[in-house]
Amino acid sequence: MLQANGKKLFESCGCEAIYTSCLYQLQYITGIAPENGCAIIDKTGTTLYTDMRYMEAAEKLLRGTDVTPVLYKQSDVLERLAAYKEVGVSFDQMSHIEYVTLEKAGAKLVNIDDKITKAMIVKNKTEVEQISMAGWIAEDAFIELLPEIKEGMTELEVAALLEYKMRKFGAHGIAFDTIVAFGSHASVPHYETGLTKLKFGDEILIDFGCKVNGYCSDITRTFLFGDDGKHEEFKKAYACVLAAHNLAKEKIVVGMTGKEADAIARNYLIEQGYGDLFTHSLGHGVGLNIHEAPSISPKGDIVLEEGMVFSNEPGVYKAGEYGIRIEDTVILENGKVKSFMPKTDKNLIIL
Amino acid sequence: MLQANGKKLFESCGCEAIYTSCLYQLQYITGIAPENGCAIIDKTGTTLYTDMRYMEAAEKLLRGTDVTPVLYKQSDVLERLAAYKEVGVSFDQMSHIEYVTLEKAGAKLVNIDDKITKAMIVKNKTEVEQISMAGWIAEDAFIELLPEIKEGMTELEVAALLEYKMRKFGAHGIAFDTIVAFGSHASVPHYETGLTKLKFGDEILIDFGCKVNGYCSDITRTFLFGDDGKHEEFKKAYACVLAAHNLAKEKIVVGMTGKEADAIARNYLIEQGYGDLFTHSLGHGVGLNIHEAPSISPKGDIVLEEGMVFSNEPGVYKAGEYGIRIEDTVILENGKVKSFMPKTDKNLIIL
Repeated sequence: MLQANGKKLFESCGCEAIYTSCLYQLQYITGIAPENGCAIIDKTGTTLYTDMRYMEAAEKLLRGTDVTPVLYKQSDVLERLAAYKEVGVSFDQMSHIEYVTLEKAGAKLVNIDDKITKAMIVKNKTEVEQISMAGWIAEDAFIELLPEIKEGMTELEVAALLEYKMRKFGAHGIAFDTIVAFGSHASVPHYETGLTKLKFGDEILIDFGCKVNGYCSDITRTFLFGDDGKHEEFKKAYACVLAAHNLAKEKIVVGMTGKEADAIARNYLIEQGYGDLFTHSLGHGVGLNIHEAPSISPKGDIVLEEGMVFSNEPGVYKAGEYGIRIEDTVILENGKVKSFMPKTDKNLIIL
Repeated sequence: MLQANGKKLFESCGCEAIYTSCLYQLQYITGIAPENGCAIIDKTGTTLYTDMRYMEAAEKLLRGTDVTPVLYKQSDVLERLAAYKEVGVSFDQMSHIEYVTLEKAGAKLVNIDDKITKAMIVKNKTEVEQISMAGWIAEDAFIELLPEIKEGMTELEVAALLEYKMRKFGAHGIAFDTIVAFGSHASVPHYETGLTKLKFGDEILIDFGCKVNGYCSDITRTFLFGDDGKHEEFKKAYACVLAAHNLAKEKIVVGMTGKEADAIARNYLIEQGYGDLFTHSLGHGVGLNIHEAPSISPKGDIVLEEGMVFSNEPGVYKAGEYGIRIEDTVILENGKVKSFMPKTDKNLIIL
């Protein structure tokens, strides 16, 4: 269960106590993320401080775990923190005003950003179930969307419809603002979805994902809305991006660095003449954050381990003409890559 | 235009320069909120530092304004900040690690949280247009939703459908997770939308809102899905909440404190015997944040001014039985309250 993460984090950190009010860290440690809440972990277990609005839900969810929900009172928390010799906190995920408040109260704070990142990078069974569900929902929503895409729809309408379907299938929210790009808009990797209308012959790039209990999925599909006979260059590039995607899926194994993993797809695309057009990393870690460690990029020095989850997303972008990205969220299982999006055929779809 | 806000903030702050990387502050100052970006304002104007992904959009949007987009390089920013005698920052909206990094580089940082809050509390014409649009979209989506609510739909389906309609009408996103509560679930003010199915005679409470260029709307409607004859107490309470809502709308004027404004609705509900069941504030400021200053509550000491935007949301909650909340986002205009949701009749709807 998710609540076991607090103990794991505590054991790996070596401080007398850990404190956090960061929402994704609270979700990781306690399985819920109450606003205006915080948690303290020490050798006696985990205390989740929350206000009345979340108490009922917290008590129900945390019964039988080693996490105890308690009504939040700032003076109680400050007094308790001041009594420890050392409290591990995340300098990156606390505001400066919070740091000042804790320090003024007498708490001795040490930065454990790196230890938290390290603890969260390998996903346990429960976490994998949530990510798997988020992947399942995203893929099913996409499959249901395809036949409903019609000429004249705006990018925003397609995005709204896809998000609706993910919510309908049980997503707790979207993982990030859905990107829907028609035609040459696809050549901008972080395109902002707009009011452009779909017309026959357009390529369509959709980058989307959803959340289940805070855990994200991330998926991109590129396809054609009819074939106007002007897509020879696009089709050639599509085949190469798909080959790079499949090569990465096949060849990435436990024990490689992120850099070595990235090079599998990158070297292939360079060989095929697309080196300059693959303008981003092959992938990024996916979990409670849509972008987290490990980085699968030319700078990725983390060694990939069993249970790490990341995106496999090679892309080729020719400015003002076309853009292609084929992305799955994947996990390292039994030493090899397994996709969370096994249902969609990745051969070029022409609607 | 939004870009005029930087100058206004700079003039009211009194520091030699202002620095921020906080997304909503960047949106306020420059009209866009690039991830991994930051801005510096000084007497020469505003510089927006951003990466390649956002450069094209930034250059287009900022042409002709006093905001200059520049490619982000950390060393450039740090060097520039170190050269000022004093740099105003928001201790509340910067991470501790960011504070440490800037200070190590030699920047002399002072906290201007209060000045930023004060500058942002009165909305200018462009900001009011965005909030008005966000209100317009939310209300139209609700009007279109009503005839599509059917027996057997889950709370999550209704929420997804409403969010879809807001996106379809042009919202850039939702302002917060939509609350849809059927039956007695409505008695929990921060209920988490779930898989409960709608049945004849249920009350329905929907609390929702959307964003336009970062600016939020916030609206709640309570109504009945058919009348099973068991709603006499609910109807009596509904009439009182509506009367409290209308009284607040009529009597709140420029020059009152938030506390005095809150008391208008609160005293009425106390007189009617609902004092103990009105368990939250009458309202909160609405802008780039869904909750911001001024607070319209028994603790609200800010004096209300022309151009302030806030929610008017009296509520009555009888645990395990029913909950009623009637909420509009409103502005103080010509000294009085004007609603951003003028189209929906607030008399009890029975579908």
